[in-house]
Amino acid sequence: MAACRGCSSVEYFAAPIARLIDEFEKLPGIGHKTAQRLAFHMLSMPEARALEFSDAIVEAKRRIHFCPQCFNLTDLDLCPICAATHQRDPSLLCVVEEPRDIMAMERTNEYKGLYHVLHGAISPQDRVGPDDIRIRELLGRLAAPGVREVILATNPSIEGEATAIYISRLIKPLGVRTTRLAHGIPVGGNLEYADEVTLARSLEGRREL
Amino acid sequence: MAACRGCSSVEYFAAPIARLIDEFEKLPGIGHKTAQRLAFHMLSMPEARALEFSDAIVEAKRRIHFCPQCFNLTDLDLCPICAATHQRDPSLLCVVEEPRDIMAMERTNEYKGLYHVLHGAISPQDRVGPDDIRIRELLGRLAAPGVREVILATNPSIEGEATAIYISRLIKPLGVRTTRLAHGIPVGGNLEYADEVTLARSLEGRREL
Repeated sequence: MAACRGCSSVEYFAAPIARLIDEFEKLPGIGHKTAQRLAFHMLSMPEARALEFSDAIVEAKRRIHFCPQCFNLTDLDLCPICAATHQRDPSLLCVVEEPRDIMAMERTNEYKGLYHVLHGAISPQDRVGPDDIRIRELLGRLAAPGVREVILATNPSIEGEATAIYISRLIKPLGVRTTRLAHGIPVGGNLEYADEVTLARSLEGRREL
Repeated sequence: MAACRGCSSVEYFAAPIARLIDEFEKLPGIGHKTAQRLAFHMLSMPEARALEFSDAIVEAKRRIHFCPQCFNLTDLDLCPICAATHQRDPSLLCVVEEPRDIMAMERTNEYKGLYHVLHGAISPQDRVGPDDIRIRELLGRLAAPGVREVILATNPSIEGEATAIYISRLIKPLGVRTTRLAHGIPVGGNLEYADEVTLARSLEGRREL
């Protein structure tokens, strides 16, 4: 019997259940009710399946580390993208905030260069400064010759924009071409529903047909 | 590098990451994108915190079992509700589908009887028959004298209603009073937004003021 963090009342949860609910609730986007539902689902699973889940966490944490070159997540010495030297153009570097952004870029099937994962964006509000993300390592990679263009693919958020501007100012003196992903109306989107900032940026970036 | 179940394209996920995403995706209400987000969140956690999560699953599965009397989940010999013989009225039995329904009832602070958890509802579509849920055990409890009333608190769904009707037919011959939770408009709700079936039931169940 344990008190439940999410409810004001003491509830009749056994301590191990309360603990499991608590753990689920710490995940992003998981509220108290969802955490309860997931915990009870896990308790109703066959033991072997639940232990597989728990083991997947342990295995992922034990085997996954940062690629020493691009800081993508990998279980190999070098991540598959950095290792694919014959299929990849090492003169192009795409800078992203998170490893999952690499998956988004890869899904386009258009980009054949390498990546650099910052693991965050500059955000004074969250006390994340330039030294807290992998900018120093990016400059290290640019110190060696060979990179022709750096594509700043940080998010189109305030933090992402600020990070892109900050990095571009550091890179430009090095004589490396610095570009930013285009802003504009999403393909398949409806003009009517586009917000005015996006629409203004798509007008500003209009192209000859 | 592993193919990702949820996407058509092969993605650059290391196998342990793909496995973790897969595990999250098996949980109810967790889609592919959310599973990715949760898996990457877990990978960005300090190792100790992630292992705490994994350990919470193992602990819950190892220590939690059914209460032999009411089939609530517990880590004790008898669940705290069944064990609280001095504070509980053993002549009242509330029949619910799932252990989490007990928490919902307990939050009302109105019910002081005991419970019986069916662990499901009769659903021919899902091939759940009367023998697949704890109806036999309920009848076993009613075989001993002492229970005055059985409150059927299964969900107001087709399956819940069918289960309630099925059980009531079995119980009535035993001379035990059998009741069902009232249907009606939710407190704080708006008449305008009540569906017609609920409204009809609340009219049918109207009470003298």
